[in-house]
Amino acid sequence: MNSDEFRAAGHRLIDWIADYRATIESRPVMAQTEPGAIKAKLPATPPQHPESFDAVLRDLDTIVLPGITSWQHPRFFGYFPSNGLYASLLGDYVSSGLGVIGLAWQSSPALTEVEEVVVDWMRQMLGLSDRWSGVINDTASTSTLVALLCARERTTNYGLARGGLQEEAAPLVVYATAHSHSSVEKAALLAGFGKRHVRIVPHDSSHAMRPESLENMIKDDIADGLKPCAVVATTGTTTTTALDPLAAISKVARAHGVWMHVDAAMAGSAMILPECRWMWDGVEGADSVIVNAHKWLGAVFDCAVYFVRDPEHLVRVMSTNPSYLQTAADGRVKNYRDWGLPLGRRFRALKLWFLIREQGVEGLQERLRRDIGNAKWLEQEISADPQWKVLAPVVLQTLCVRHEPPGLQGDALDKHTLGWVARLNESGAAYLTPAMLDGQWMVRVSIGAELTEREHVAQLWALMRQHAS
Amino acid sequence: MNSDEFRAAGHRLIDWIADYRATIESRPVMAQTEPGAIKAKLPATPPQHPESFDAVLRDLDTIVLPGITSWQHPRFFGYFPSNGLYASLLGDYVSSGLGVIGLAWQSSPALTEVEEVVVDWMRQMLGLSDRWSGVINDTASTSTLVALLCARERTTNYGLARGGLQEEAAPLVVYATAHSHSSVEKAALLAGFGKRHVRIVPHDSSHAMRPESLENMIKDDIADGLKPCAVVATTGTTTTTALDPLAAISKVARAHGVWMHVDAAMAGSAMILPECRWMWDGVEGADSVIVNAHKWLGAVFDCAVYFVRDPEHLVRVMSTNPSYLQTAADGRVKNYRDWGLPLGRRFRALKLWFLIREQGVEGLQERLRRDIGNAKWLEQEISADPQWKVLAPVVLQTLCVRHEPPGLQGDALDKHTLGWVARLNESGAAYLTPAMLDGQWMVRVSIGAELTEREHVAQLWALMRQHAS
Repeated sequence: MNSDEFRAAGHRLIDWIADYRATIESRPVMAQTEPGAIKAKLPATPPQHPESFDAVLRDLDTIVLPGITSWQHPRFFGYFPSNGLYASLLGDYVSSGLGVIGLAWQSSPALTEVEEVVVDWMRQMLGLSDRWSGVINDTASTSTLVALLCARERTTNYGLARGGLQEEAAPLVVYATAHSHSSVEKAALLAGFGKRHVRIVPHDSSHAMRPESLENMIKDDIADGLKPCAVVATTGTTTTTALDPLAAISKVARAHGVWMHVDAAMAGSAMILPECRWMWDGVEGADSVIVNAHKWLGAVFDCAVYFVRDPEHLVRVMSTNPSYLQTAADGRVKNYRDWGLPLGRRFRALKLWFLIREQGVEGLQERLRRDIGNAKWLEQEISADPQWKVLAPVVLQTLCVRHEPPGLQGDALDKHTLGWVARLNESGAAYLTPAMLDGQWMVRVSIGAELTEREHVAQLWALMRQHAS
Repeated sequence: MNSDEFRAAGHRLIDWIADYRATIESRPVMAQTEPGAIKAKLPATPPQHPESFDAVLRDLDTIVLPGITSWQHPRFFGYFPSNGLYASLLGDYVSSGLGVIGLAWQSSPALTEVEEVVVDWMRQMLGLSDRWSGVINDTASTSTLVALLCARERTTNYGLARGGLQEEAAPLVVYATAHSHSSVEKAALLAGFGKRHVRIVPHDSSHAMRPESLENMIKDDIADGLKPCAVVATTGTTTTTALDPLAAISKVARAHGVWMHVDAAMAGSAMILPECRWMWDGVEGADSVIVNAHKWLGAVFDCAVYFVRDPEHLVRVMSTNPSYLQTAADGRVKNYRDWGLPLGRRFRALKLWFLIREQGVEGLQERLRRDIGNAKWLEQEISADPQWKVLAPVVLQTLCVRHEPPGLQGDALDKHTLGWVARLNESGAAYLTPAMLDGQWMVRVSIGAELTEREHVAQLWALMRQHAS
């Protein structure tokens, strides 16, 4: 494909994407396809000879599109909003078009310096003090792994440079609640801690960590000869948007030299609203924080912004310095390869830079406030219906709800819940995620897709009643 | 930005990218900028109000472009080729445009099934048997970390589900050579092994691992009460494209129950050429292999294809299964979230799918053969000049060379080498990476950017002589 062919194909593709998004409301939200059906339509062997762009575009329409669950749909209320605003797409297109790799500052200075600037913009937007330094990672899962590795190395005084984790006498312990994201336990296990040393700290009735329980567990572990290493606190848990009390947790963490990581992957976006910042009061006492700009905020996936208090420690844990990566500029510049797991890095800052500039901070704030207002509205509607229950405080844009017809409970109620949500999802009219809460299935309504207006939330509420009754 | 504004801006941006690439030869290869100069041109605080797309595009031209080191330039001979062919850009643009996330098969079935098909195409193209299963990761660094974590868990029989690495009595050991990529040691340290348990296996005069030394080290470690865990063998080392003898290494690894990971991040692309497959003869005896489709092959970064022999083991190490990720399709489908570190996943398969279809296997093969031919040509030119030395076998597209004027050696020779390559790089006419080989600086010439033709290699050779003399 030469330059002119790219222009022609590129223009067609831009229109294809605009058409997809402009007509998205008429499409089913959840893909209506059976396991293996898409694979069966694709050749099992690679093409020996070039195919035309027309053929590829045709397969996009007939094979790929029907197999897509539309996260950008205005009636997508599943998992979490994963907005990719147009401006952010364009920023990412430039990144691919330039095709530069950030191995070192010198390997593309703008890649590093725009990232430095834009993550500092994010810091300011989130209301974090200037004692934080940021870097863009792919995901919160990876960032939490980085945080726990850094915790491990601080606690062991860089055991990795000696005999590694096996030579540490006292077992290291990590603390979180049962409502922490699944990636927290995964990261702890991958970092080598072992399930036996991952403590589930009790939570209160709002599903938030009890700091006094944390303190007691830490003291017990110390008394037992173990070494408390890290606590992961969550601002806005996945299931219910519970808010772990960061100020109290950080006091406990500091008193015992425990690393504190704050998982604000989803709810962190809301910290651009001054009226929401009470939710992570105490965050300044943490050692690391993760906020996913690729969720509610609107930067197309992947764009996780990871903040640390001690970048020198991060670099000491992550750095490598082979001769082929050394340049004359080293020492005067940031080499972000030493701030995370991968060596190679895309120019990810562009999509965030484009997004913030095209929206302005006020544009982003306005949309998030709209979504919070829609969630409040739905909460009122549901609360007014005696057959429905709102099961957790509606802090931001996620509701935990259940249809509870008289007489139904236990397994029968679970069957009813999973039944109506499956029917609704299969209808293609909207998409919701069921989840367990306190031992019983319920349904999460996660509001905040870019295109979701009040009318779509009202449509969802009608659909919920229709499919549940 | 609404749909029509996106069409207009998108078309302009496609043209901007086509213009950048069409005029790339007239630009300097290495960015001619000082540390901090780009940052100084950007506002230190985020914009409160929306800015126009014109303003963003203007900054792209005046601030970002001058700060770019052009990896797509036909006279880019640094690091490794990081080709992003037009077709692959378009595939990635669709991925961003759709904005879907692969948390589970159901969260976008096509994302999973196209990936299954296209990684299997890659497997066939590379000549691997059907006993391998593949998945797309971001980078080789991450994939090597995954491999060593899987090795750790196989050796400890899933210690992560019990007390973790600290409860293992015998220290685990990892083996590689001094010519392994820097990410190997980094991954070993992050996986908890500790520097003391990372063995540097001696290499022969071609910088390839000595399997008999590996065997002796393993035996010594066992005798000392340690537990050999993993060996990382490289097909095409970063510095010299050295080829570790996989067949002999796998024999040793199997005899001692040691996990064998093959790092073919760069040279793996060449395995689509049947005449090159002798280079990784014995690869079938490995447990895991990484090939970066985002290097020479031409899929825009990031697109690392990771192959394993035992996907069930991989899933057992990586899986999480919280209620909010469970769907009715589980058990009948692949949930790729359990095949690697991150939970969220982009639709990365599209860029590889577009690339392979637009090029055809033969198109990809033809370009790689062109590059190998260009490397052979340059090798002959350089070998014919008595002042120049080719320091390692030219196996693929990388040459290790040094200008050795009579009488110069030791530090003086190093100073000369670093001097002329810095002058050449700073001129903007071409870009090369210096590296250490056997204690002395030399220069790597890595051929294989998409636009690099014989004439550009000839221009480079003239520039090298000019700046060295």
